[in-house]
Amino acid sequence: MSAWETWLAEQAATREAAGLTRRLRPRAADDPAVDLAGNDYLGLARDPGVRRAAADAALAWGAGASASRLVTGTLGIHDELERELADYLGQPAALVLSTGYHANLAVVTALADRGTRVLSDAHIHASLVDAVRLSRARLTVVPHSDVDAVRAGLVAAAADGERTIVLAESVYSVLGDAAPLVELAELCAEHDALLVVDEAHGLGVHGPGLVATLGLAGLPHVVVTATLSKSLGAQGGAVLGSPALREHLVNRARPFIFDTGLAPAPTAGALAALRALRARPELGTTVRARVAELADVLGVAAPAGAVLSVPMSSPQAAVAAQAAALGAGLRVGCFRPPSVPDGISRLRITASAGVPDDDWARAVATLAALVKEHQ
Amino acid sequence: MSAWETWLAEQAATREAAGLTRRLRPRAADDPAVDLAGNDYLGLARDPGVRRAAADAALAWGAGASASRLVTGTLGIHDELERELADYLGQPAALVLSTGYHANLAVVTALADRGTRVLSDAHIHASLVDAVRLSRARLTVVPHSDVDAVRAGLVAAAADGERTIVLAESVYSVLGDAAPLVELAELCAEHDALLVVDEAHGLGVHGPGLVATLGLAGLPHVVVTATLSKSLGAQGGAVLGSPALREHLVNRARPFIFDTGLAPAPTAGALAALRALRARPELGTTVRARVAELADVLGVAAPAGAVLSVPMSSPQAAVAAQAAALGAGLRVGCFRPPSVPDGISRLRITASAGVPDDDWARAVATLAALVKEHQ
Repeated sequence: MSAWETWLAEQAATREAAGLTRRLRPRAADDPAVDLAGNDYLGLARDPGVRRAAADAALAWGAGASASRLVTGTLGIHDELERELADYLGQPAALVLSTGYHANLAVVTALADRGTRVLSDAHIHASLVDAVRLSRARLTVVPHSDVDAVRAGLVAAAADGERTIVLAESVYSVLGDAAPLVELAELCAEHDALLVVDEAHGLGVHGPGLVATLGLAGLPHVVVTATLSKSLGAQGGAVLGSPALREHLVNRARPFIFDTGLAPAPTAGALAALRALRARPELGTTVRARVAELADVLGVAAPAGAVLSVPMSSPQAAVAAQAAALGAGLRVGCFRPPSVPDGISRLRITASAGVPDDDWARAVATLAALVKEHQ
Repeated sequence: MSAWETWLAEQAATREAAGLTRRLRPRAADDPAVDLAGNDYLGLARDPGVRRAAADAALAWGAGASASRLVTGTLGIHDELERELADYLGQPAALVLSTGYHANLAVVTALADRGTRVLSDAHIHASLVDAVRLSRARLTVVPHSDVDAVRAGLVAAAADGERTIVLAESVYSVLGDAAPLVELAELCAEHDALLVVDEAHGLGVHGPGLVATLGLAGLPHVVVTATLSKSLGAQGGAVLGSPALREHLVNRARPFIFDTGLAPAPTAGALAALRALRARPELGTTVRARVAELADVLGVAAPAGAVLSVPMSSPQAAVAAQAAALGAGLRVGCFRPPSVPDGISRLRITASAGVPDDDWARAVATLAALVKEHQ
């Protein structure tokens, strides 16, 4: 065996011994299980109008954008999606990228370099962690949602004369808690820093997102990133902010420049989902009511987002509960170390507005019994 | 103005003064210009069967995959695409990611760390440059296609006891030249190193790619990455190699794990394009004949890929020729500093097999006159 084959085998053996090997399980288009594990928070990925719009775009434009956005890969529907996204989120401009991961890499790497200080919340998404590393910015990880620690970091950075970026998510993925966005935005204004907020889990569940509902949209020192693959049911990401920021990204963001434009079908799918979301504000109301109902039944605090984290006594208990749920026709997720910030294994249950009412009622009853049994 | 607004304005002014500001120009679905600028090398992005397959997948599966591949985001069509890609490229296994950029980030960051040596060709794509930076591997940039320099690097790395990766593209983007893959694979075998070859511009134009046609497919020390957005006309990327490598990426590659699965329409579009490519080997023959014909007419050497680089006397001459081509109904690309490794501005002309014969004949005649006039 070569050195590389030996190394791969050792890595696999270590994972296997720790019980952490993960395997992909393809699902069928007509999978009968109720999906409470994905991020289709509003059920728009499978909405008939959204599917039709995606299909029509593939027929009209082709299967791909065929080139970088800077060459011939900018389609009329990219432009339309960017204008309508910016309008809905209350931002002057938007730029669409082909994944949410690309959006986060783009904004951080195009703004930050070795001369920049980044103050990053401890619970930030992997794509933002990778973005900071790729940018080579000087990183300070601040304790989760600790406003005093951010203030101290901003004071220290100002003393050093550094341009500074604060990174937060409007709603954090694992614990489902909301960031103290008003305080962070005030601090950033006061200390001449830029606040970058990832609305991956806020957009849709809270209409145009928490930045907008808190009145922070359009402030020149608050930049938003979003994903088109969760509430908008498609694929891709976006950066929202000033026209100057957008132009800077077009010219400097390598994950934008050196990538093929987002394919026509997910572009049109996200656009149709955005229009559905604006036309049907009850979708957000439903998902928030459902997550509150389920939290109440399971005896945990209601999260700010659509995903409920239910602490379990052990990784084994979490896996057993997940298997029992699947046996009852419910797909739920599972967080285990090392994917949790505090080492506590959890069930991850998405209260999607797309699940039919009777399926939802059955799911709540099933999960109540099942969690009690395995917790 | 805040510090950030001032900084963005300064950056924009510098770009503007250098004449390097780039702007996006959305195109219409019924754009009448002949596209000789994109990367739809075989014309499959707009092939009726490929479009239909993409549209049908959006109708059957929805606009998005709705979750990470590790949760509920692995679809039956991902599995199908991976099996057929692996089969065609002569590899034991494949893993599909949502962009080619993700594929390159994934393979390098999951294999390399501070203890790894990477020997990277000087002309490597931006996504591989970023991948190495993100991995924190020890990087040695070797002169372009310099086999002796790679050998020296391998000897030095072996002396230091480092696990080593050599990065190359089968066909390089800007100059269109092929890498010395046989020599590189031999050297890597001899020095227990891993060769990672990006087939972005080789797949399709050379059937299953140069790694396969040179008899290097399936060797345990040769890993391939590919894009689904060029010859396969859709969106996404893939890593091809051993089942052990695939399992390692599933468990460790953050750009795979922390991303939503590739959307149904581009997945099915790439699969239909792959089948079309296998059923119609004349597509590759046509594109290679066309690029040779155009190279001959324009008096430049024929490249190994589908894209012809035509050196121009200045960035201004290149831009003027590009504008004149558009006036004649032809979209061609343009390479200017800093996107060229040697500082020489070029026209970038794609000899796509998807252009109808009469349009192609007219394009050749037009370009012959136009290049002469502006060169």
